[in-house]
Amino acid sequence: MVKEMKPFRLASRETKNEDTIVRVTGPRESINIGEGYCTVIAGPCAVENRDDYVTLAQFLAKSGAHLLRGGLFKPRTSPYSFRGLGKEGLEIMKDARAATGLPIITEVMDVRDLDHLVGEVDILQVGSRNMQNYALLDELGQVGTPILLKRGFSATIEEWLLAAEYILAQGNPQVILCERGIRTFEPYTRNTVDIGAVALIKKLSHLPVLVDPSHATGKWDMVIPVAKAAVAAGADGVMVEVHQDPDQALSDGKQSLTRDNFIKMVDQISRLADLENKKINTR
Amino acid sequence: MVKEMKPFRLASRETKNEDTIVRVTGPRESINIGEGYCTVIAGPCAVENRDDYVTLAQFLAKSGAHLLRGGLFKPRTSPYSFRGLGKEGLEIMKDARAATGLPIITEVMDVRDLDHLVGEVDILQVGSRNMQNYALLDELGQVGTPILLKRGFSATIEEWLLAAEYILAQGNPQVILCERGIRTFEPYTRNTVDIGAVALIKKLSHLPVLVDPSHATGKWDMVIPVAKAAVAAGADGVMVEVHQDPDQALSDGKQSLTRDNFIKMVDQISRLADLENKKINTR
Amino acid sequence: MVKEMKPFRLASRETKNEDTIVRVTGPRESINIGEGYCTVIAGPCAVENRDDYVTLAQFLAKSGAHLLRGGLFKPRTSPYSFRGLGKEGLEIMKDARAATGLPIITEVMDVRDLDHLVGEVDILQVGSRNMQNYALLDELGQVGTPILLKRGFSATIEEWLLAAEYILAQGNPQVILCERGIRTFEPYTRNTVDIGAVALIKKLSHLPVLVDPSHATGKWDMVIPVAKAAVAAGADGVMVEVHQDPDQALSDGKQSLTRDNFIKMVDQISRLADLENKKINTR
Amino acid sequence: MVKEMKPFRLASRETKNEDTIVRVTGPRESINIGEGYCTVIAGPCAVENRDDYVTLAQFLAKSGAHLLRGGLFKPRTSPYSFRGLGKEGLEIMKDARAATGLPIITEVMDVRDLDHLVGEVDILQVGSRNMQNYALLDELGQVGTPILLKRGFSATIEEWLLAAEYILAQGNPQVILCERGIRTFEPYTRNTVDIGAVALIKKLSHLPVLVDPSHATGKWDMVIPVAKAAVAAGADGVMVEVHQDPDQALSDGKQSLTRDNFIKMVDQISRLADLENKKINTR
Repeated sequence: MVKEMKPFRLASRETKNEDTIVRVTGPRESINIGEGYCTVIAGPCAVENRDDYVTLAQFLAKSGAHLLRGGLFKPRTSPYSFRGLGKEGLEIMKDARAATGLPIITEVMDVRDLDHLVGEVDILQVGSRNMQNYALLDELGQVGTPILLKRGFSATIEEWLLAAEYILAQGNPQVILCERGIRTFEPYTRNTVDIGAVALIKKLSHLPVLVDPSHATGKWDMVIPVAKAAVAAGADGVMVEVHQDPDQALSDGKQSLTRDNFIKMVDQISRLADLENKKINTR
Repeated sequence: MVKEMKPFRLASRETKNEDTIVRVTGPRESINIGEGYCTVIAGPCAVENRDDYVTLAQFLAKSGAHLLRGGLFKPRTSPYSFRGLGKEGLEIMKDARAATGLPIITEVMDVRDLDHLVGEVDILQVGSRNMQNYALLDELGQVGTPILLKRGFSATIEEWLLAAEYILAQGNPQVILCERGIRTFEPYTRNTVDIGAVALIKKLSHLPVLVDPSHATGKWDMVIPVAKAAVAAGADGVMVEVHQDPDQALSDGKQSLTRDNFIKMVDQISRLADLENKKINTR
Repeated sequence: MVKEMKPFRLASRETKNEDTIVRVTGPRESINIGEGYCTVIAGPCAVENRDDYVTLAQFLAKSGAHLLRGGLFKPRTSPYSFRGLGKEGLEIMKDARAATGLPIITEVMDVRDLDHLVGEVDILQVGSRNMQNYALLDELGQVGTPILLKRGFSATIEEWLLAAEYILAQGNPQVILCERGIRTFEPYTRNTVDIGAVALIKKLSHLPVLVDPSHATGKWDMVIPVAKAAVAAGADGVMVEVHQDPDQALSDGKQSLTRDNFIKMVDQISRLADLENKKINTR
Repeated sequence: MVKEMKPFRLASRETKNEDTIVRVTGPRESINIGEGYCTVIAGPCAVENRDDYVTLAQFLAKSGAHLLRGGLFKPRTSPYSFRGLGKEGLEIMKDARAATGLPIITEVMDVRDLDHLVGEVDILQVGSRNMQNYALLDELGQVGTPILLKRGFSATIEEWLLAAEYILAQGNPQVILCERGIRTFEPYTRNTVDIGAVALIKKLSHLPVLVDPSHATGKWDMVIPVAKAAVAAGADGVMVEVHQDPDQALSDGKQSLTRDNFIKMVDQISRLADLENKKINTR
């Protein structure tokens, strides 16, 4: 009997059993994302202004973050919501990158923005709403930048790996997956984090997988327990939102950690990473 | 007490109570889509070759279709599936348009394709996977062509109306909504058609709403009962897949009607449209 | 190749292709439920007091209802909500039965209540929360009363037919299915009515299938369009909540029709039933 | 402004902030379930025969299990599946209890079985399908035995806590909650374990909460990572299926751990429990 191959050929362990370690080149050092490492990506939902962003970045750099996140082009459900600073914000992120030595990651929604972003940011993120934006995925398969591919909020695991396949098939092997919660009937949390997906991805694919407990839960006081669950289940790290003053955030304040809670989270997941023999210092 | 406005301001009946009738200008005559009319959009999932498409179009034109559908740029879950004929297929659709006198509709996935499509097709369709592709929605708000906006397969009704709001807010008032089934736990059908959404949209919004029973069910033998349910619930028409030989289709054969079943469907929904005082002859 | 039988053997058309017509014996005449008939079951969510129930029953009897519904033992999410009049309410329903000549239906939740109910009510209902209460199903398979089996709010179609199979396998062939909406991510409506399930049940099974648009939507102003969709899709009738004064109802007021809207609904589905060659006068 | 109380009054931390520790009295010693303890409940899905059950129980007792599980009355989707040994199996479980000194837990589905089970088993379990079987919950509120209440596979967290409220309101304060996965659109796993629910329950309620990774995932090779995630997220323990020979199990073999994997799981969650300052030795 011939065993049927998985439809996500390049993403599958059937094709490549060895774990992919994505190497992200920062301004001073490089970091590794993948099996054996525990990576912390942190920052505010959106870049709002230079002072706050750079100050927060410096705090994050010394408190255990390995990469800085920050939204420039924000996908918003309503056209009337704050949609990000765009290119202007990119300069702010680059300043924070220079000031801290940390690599930066931001979301790209429009193929026409790639001109500004490629070569400037260290990881390009595909957001949940664009996981099946195939025009975008095709383009991202042709850049030299690592891609963080968030799971669509209603994508099956197979659809998610097939979205990764779009990028891999165009020649870019540097894909990092990120579970960020799926849409269910439960009204209490914004989404339901699919912790089993982490274990499954590790089994089915050689690609790194992170968890975003901020978007997954929508509640700051659930971020730490879910981040810990992620590392215990085998995730290669977490991506969290931190804000200097969550109550004043222009978006997603309710799910952002304060500085104190960020320190607490790093401390707790570091112990778990130790137990799992993952390096929390990813350099 | 101040009553809170709906977040989808322009799409809401609070702003405009009068039903929007979208007028589609075809090569010979124009057709109306909206309250009081029952519109039938039909065609194969993908345009596969000239002969088959034009022949089928002629059959559809004389059997009760008011618009021809046909996929040129196909969003496919796997990068290895047939992804459409692209620009080459557009010429085929234009030939069918000229041969039958019917206006044509096709899906646009990439802002860069708008140059080829605007002015050539009579309705531009946004597919389910791109309902929250805001870069695309912003552009479609700036063209003069009517837009058919499919509901995301896991979008709430509010998110769907807010996606329409993106287009309306940019200045294009010609938006047609299309329910195409939502993703649920039920494995037997491809999706679950949300018939209540039709009634809700009619109450909340002045925009026309159609139902696509082919994608909603994924099974050809459920298309006719669901199409009838749609018209009975108040939908302004249906969009169905028809194929000259469903077993040989390059995509979606299982959900395509044969010619005979298309004739049967038109006959049955025409009687229902009569009962509801909707004009099935939409000219 | 041996074709695998459906797991719901007795419920399947593979075993019995001929449509099952359930014959309900009322105090004066009998009614038929199944293919070719359009049955209307109506009444308040809960029996609240004698005067209101009997008065409403008389109105319903002359306005097109074929069976009277009324909750005696109410499954309530909170233990602190009104849980029904129980046995005391049964006497009220029997009075309404005698006064109107219509058969009555009520929900049974506890096997120990069967002693009071069997022989007194004309149809026993299994509610959505108890669809997989197998102890109850086994007992209902051993009574001579027809059973109306509501779909669990998160049951697949196969699980629903297997629940029917529990009753059939114990020897009671009189099972009526009732779609009442499934739980999805959509917050606007209480549940999402699965109109495709009606078409599917008709194809897979010989059992009658009704739709309950009141529980499915939770909104009175969606009841009529969904009831019409149900009949157009092939349902053998509807079960709706009507209340003499919905604003004062002890439960489910928001989804109850007023008398005027009940008359309007019967009028509209009667026309649809005519079109489908279903007898709306089911006697 | 008056703050609204939670509808689950007795289950809420608003009424009782102190963590409930359920004390289970076994044949030799008692064990504690709740905050500060990490409890392991293990055993086969169904009790199949005396030799296998007692032998496995002895293995589990010396390998770290604190309670023995075993199904006597099995809720099965199909009436034709193996439905358990019933009362005959109870004698087998009692023998295992005597032989190992461990307390036992089994599911009750029918109020009429309480006569046989109360006083014989140490915890009574309410299964997922019966979470809203209110007749059963009312009775369980009147027994002196602790109750393990599994979450309905499509129950919201509020509905789950209200089901607990039924038991508490009748006077039984000994309720243990158990997350066992919810039904989503994802086809790869049997259910999706809601790890965030663990954190939420700990915040909203004083009741203990366990996780059942076997039913949640349906795949034995996901049991260990999900069990680890549960403990890291704050769960008070796990409930897992172990079988002497999973391939030969009469039910649920695919999700059962082998003996070797059980030992591995206990080792790994013990380290996590240590890190969280939970006593894995619960005596």
